[in-house]
Amino acid sequence: VDSLDKLFNTLKNNYLMKHENFKLSSLKYNPIKKEVKIRDAIFGPNEIQLIMGPCAIESREQLEETANEVKNAGIKIFRACAYKPRTHPYSFQGLEEEGINMLAEIGEKYNLITETEVTDPRQVKIVSEKIDILRIGARNMQNFELLKEVGKINNPVILKNGLSATLEEYLCAAEYILTNGNPNVILCERGVRGFEPLERFTYDALSIPILKTLTNLPIIADPSHPTGNKELILPLARTQIASGADGLIVEVHNNPSQALTDAKQQLDTKEIPNFITEIKKVAQAMNRKINLSKK
Amino acid sequence: VDSLDKLFNTLKNNYLMKHENFKLSSLKYNPIKKEVKIRDAIFGPNEIQLIMGPCAIESREQLEETANEVKNAGIKIFRACAYKPRTHPYSFQGLEEEGINMLAEIGEKYNLITETEVTDPRQVKIVSEKIDILRIGARNMQNFELLKEVGKINNPVILKNGLSATLEEYLCAAEYILTNGNPNVILCERGVRGFEPLERFTYDALSIPILKTLTNLPIIADPSHPTGNKELILPLARTQIASGADGLIVEVHNNPSQALTDAKQQLDTKEIPNFITEIKKVAQAMNRKINLSKK
Amino acid sequence: VDSLDKLFNTLKNNYLMKHENFKLSSLKYNPIKKEVKIRDAIFGPNEIQLIMGPCAIESREQLEETANEVKNAGIKIFRACAYKPRTHPYSFQGLEEEGINMLAEIGEKYNLITETEVTDPRQVKIVSEKIDILRIGARNMQNFELLKEVGKINNPVILKNGLSATLEEYLCAAEYILTNGNPNVILCERGVRGFEPLERFTYDALSIPILKTLTNLPIIADPSHPTGNKELILPLARTQIASGADGLIVEVHNNPSQALTDAKQQLDTKEIPNFITEIKKVAQAMNRKINLSKK
Amino acid sequence: VDSLDKLFNTLKNNYLMKHENFKLSSLKYNPIKKEVKIRDAIFGPNEIQLIMGPCAIESREQLEETANEVKNAGIKIFRACAYKPRTHPYSFQGLEEEGINMLAEIGEKYNLITETEVTDPRQVKIVSEKIDILRIGARNMQNFELLKEVGKINNPVILKNGLSATLEEYLCAAEYILTNGNPNVILCERGVRGFEPLERFTYDALSIPILKTLTNLPIIADPSHPTGNKELILPLARTQIASGADGLIVEVHNNPSQALTDAKQQLDTKEIPNFITEIKKVAQAMNRKINLSKK
Repeated sequence: VDSLDKLFNTLKNNYLMKHENFKLSSLKYNPIKKEVKIRDAIFGPNEIQLIMGPCAIESREQLEETANEVKNAGIKIFRACAYKPRTHPYSFQGLEEEGINMLAEIGEKYNLITETEVTDPRQVKIVSEKIDILRIGARNMQNFELLKEVGKINNPVILKNGLSATLEEYLCAAEYILTNGNPNVILCERGVRGFEPLERFTYDALSIPILKTLTNLPIIADPSHPTGNKELILPLARTQIASGADGLIVEVHNNPSQALTDAKQQLDTKEIPNFITEIKKVAQAMNRKINLSKK
Repeated sequence: VDSLDKLFNTLKNNYLMKHENFKLSSLKYNPIKKEVKIRDAIFGPNEIQLIMGPCAIESREQLEETANEVKNAGIKIFRACAYKPRTHPYSFQGLEEEGINMLAEIGEKYNLITETEVTDPRQVKIVSEKIDILRIGARNMQNFELLKEVGKINNPVILKNGLSATLEEYLCAAEYILTNGNPNVILCERGVRGFEPLERFTYDALSIPILKTLTNLPIIADPSHPTGNKELILPLARTQIASGADGLIVEVHNNPSQALTDAKQQLDTKEIPNFITEIKKVAQAMNRKINLSKK
Repeated sequence: VDSLDKLFNTLKNNYLMKHENFKLSSLKYNPIKKEVKIRDAIFGPNEIQLIMGPCAIESREQLEETANEVKNAGIKIFRACAYKPRTHPYSFQGLEEEGINMLAEIGEKYNLITETEVTDPRQVKIVSEKIDILRIGARNMQNFELLKEVGKINNPVILKNGLSATLEEYLCAAEYILTNGNPNVILCERGVRGFEPLERFTYDALSIPILKTLTNLPIIADPSHPTGNKELILPLARTQIASGADGLIVEVHNNPSQALTDAKQQLDTKEIPNFITEIKKVAQAMNRKINLSKK
Repeated sequence: VDSLDKLFNTLKNNYLMKHENFKLSSLKYNPIKKEVKIRDAIFGPNEIQLIMGPCAIESREQLEETANEVKNAGIKIFRACAYKPRTHPYSFQGLEEEGINMLAEIGEKYNLITETEVTDPRQVKIVSEKIDILRIGARNMQNFELLKEVGKINNPVILKNGLSATLEEYLCAAEYILTNGNPNVILCERGVRGFEPLERFTYDALSIPILKTLTNLPIIADPSHPTGNKELILPLARTQIASGADGLIVEVHNNPSQALTDAKQQLDTKEIPNFITEIKKVAQAMNRKINLSKK
């Protein structure tokens, strides 16, 4: 029993947060909140940054039409995926390099900052030359080789939390990017695996408030993936802003019912203005402004 | 394989929500949002109701001093526990009947609506005669004999969600009270068991938005228990209001560091006014008002 | 940050097991494994005890026919529920007192030790006079008033783990019974709430091995409830015996397809002999014997 | 409500297993249990295969000494990691290519089949030429680019389940390898993220029994990672064999207290013979034999 007691205590020491494991992102070691800037967009403790765009790049037409409406709504950053990490092997896997090129062109044409997901260390260099912001998805949060690779570039990197990662594991994953040389890391909360059958994921309302006490990194939130359900996106987005999120990344589509992926959880681009109006009210309650482009 | 397939599909049908299991509280069967009224306090879709008071009744002095400050802050409902369901058998178990009497007296003296937890069917009748609102805690959400018993009285009953209850199980528990004759049920979200070691409980930000689409019952939220940490109460309370909560139940103490229970998670009564100011801002963003007593 | 650090460390200390919270059942404080005996049945570290019977008492005929087959198979303990804690308020709720009387009579007639669930402190005294072993179900693991009440009798009490209880919380619940005066507590592992949609509950294979290092109480296991699926009962029962379980409680029915409750997860009484044969093999691998009545 | 009802039902349909998503590994579409063979080792429904070796390759001496003892115990497959996916960025990250070369040499010298983890698509080709069996760890279960890459080789691939993957997601991940051309996939259950603080991971005892009804792939189990605790490895390994595992992968070290990684959960090589003796008994209860090399 005594030796087991010792072992259990060792085991449970694993639960004791160690700031040395994530020194660079630790507020204890580096107590000044960081800002990540790209052109006229800033991720940090002051303004609230919005990122919008379709889940997947499906065609030039879909991408351009969506970009146009996103731009018109005053959004600065346009997201769209060319490399899709799909659960099912026989689902649409994305337009890959062709999609990246499309996104780069349309970003330039509409003067939008572009954002996309990378899923393989071999994509990082090429994509980083064409696209402004790279994203690491939940399933790759502990794909350490990919983390090291985006640590070697200088583009901002959005790192989503893993589906069952503890907050400390999440910060350690961010630290892999930072310690490999890239200081421009933005965290993005997207929910965890829970037991509730009416949700795709459980969104832990305490994650951002606790992370804000631990790390100097900016933290945005994803209201699209946890719900699996359009009607719940705005209610969730409101709670994310109220919990202190420094921004939102929202899936929007010019024709959601025809979307090749995530059809049920993409906002119609026509709904963007109302979404912004509602989010603004909560931002105001938090003494923050939405960072929109001037018209 | 075929017979197993059939069995798995049956199993998974369990996951398909059946509104008939909670007809009385179902928005589908009874599509008008209910209001639960008691004296000048209303729980419902319009105003936001606050309940405050200490975790446990410890002494007359502590109870009265806290009541006084709660009253002064404009709060209408005063909570305090006499029957404490404690995880550890050798912890303080509450003042029991003596505590109930104290709470009743102080409620009358300060003209506060009183609220307390019941943990045993044998307590229900006596407590319901002395105290205005009865509460069923998370650990008793599926204590069906207790649910049936509070179904026989007419006092408002606050029912907290179980630590690993699905939303449908939660509504079925509420239905036990309704179908036994008591229409005055108020739900209260208090978080679920999660894997994050930096939290006591995981607070699922989607629970209230989803419940609001399923049920006609008012739903308040508890920001104290999930955090286990005073500094996180306000951030969590903000997200709860932003998610649509119809009220909050908050633990406050006149001298938190000396509290016999939950010392780390009780707000100091001196912090109430600032707490209300901050919550008001989010309520405004939701086009709602805090229901405070006029001074 | 420093004050938060302190708070987080306090919070995480909650995770450090404290044997003082469950002194009586702690192997550290009371290092001799306990045996709970009733007539010719023993729960303890040597023999393996089987309990079988229908989920619910439905009729005299059903109960008697099932008892007869259970007896013929050499099983000493016959289980059946009269008080059913049902998730859905409009489901069959059990035959209550009438069922208890039936079970008592049939126990006597077939010379079977009887076992049933209690769900209300007011049932305890009466049931304890008629039935040999009382059971507290998962949903009542932290129904502390019920625990205190079964602490006042002397019948063996089987305590199931709560659906999201930690092992320490489980032992503390057992301690409530012990410290109220009843030394005859038997633990029963029945799975926890998990995220896998193909299971009713997740059965944690480490729970019994860890409990065996912490407590002196006998521990049996329930292979019926986690699966929700007859075909998985034997595979799960095998793993439970291999993990060190001191017994099994298995739902069997004389006509499972017509069962009023748990129709999908009750073994047919005709399957009992094969079930015992298979379990015997694993018991042998563990150097243990199944404690069956002599024919 | 109606439109939400429709959405919820769509959402919940996600929970309905679709065998078409994993056709190649589905027992429904391909009802013959597969065998994966490599030299004189077979993974399949008959014999039980053991894999042993240190968590990490630390030095030539450590590796060789451990290999020697593994060989002497009759084990055919020797595991050791050169690429370590570490949670903490400042922990030992493995000997990388140098380690792979060491493992290849020692495998040849001792006539052991070698097994190691790959973490990056760029490692796959080189490692597959030097090492016999490749492993994909839990954190990379949905690293789809890595899965596609090991789909292009012919070496057996051991795929561990993700920490919060459903069984269907797990089979879909395996399908990525199969559909890219590599038929030699072996599943390996290693536990999931749970809420119990006394465990590193929760090992779901139903996972193998359910997988066996769904898939034709061989399935082994890992008793080392869930426990975080040497003393629990044998108890867990017994339950895994009793649940139908076709093999075990166990961490052993010639000097565990000095191990650079997982020091608390590696068996001492001296304990191997007793471990095998105990496992043999449970295998016998399952009518199976341990596939050991003849001496």
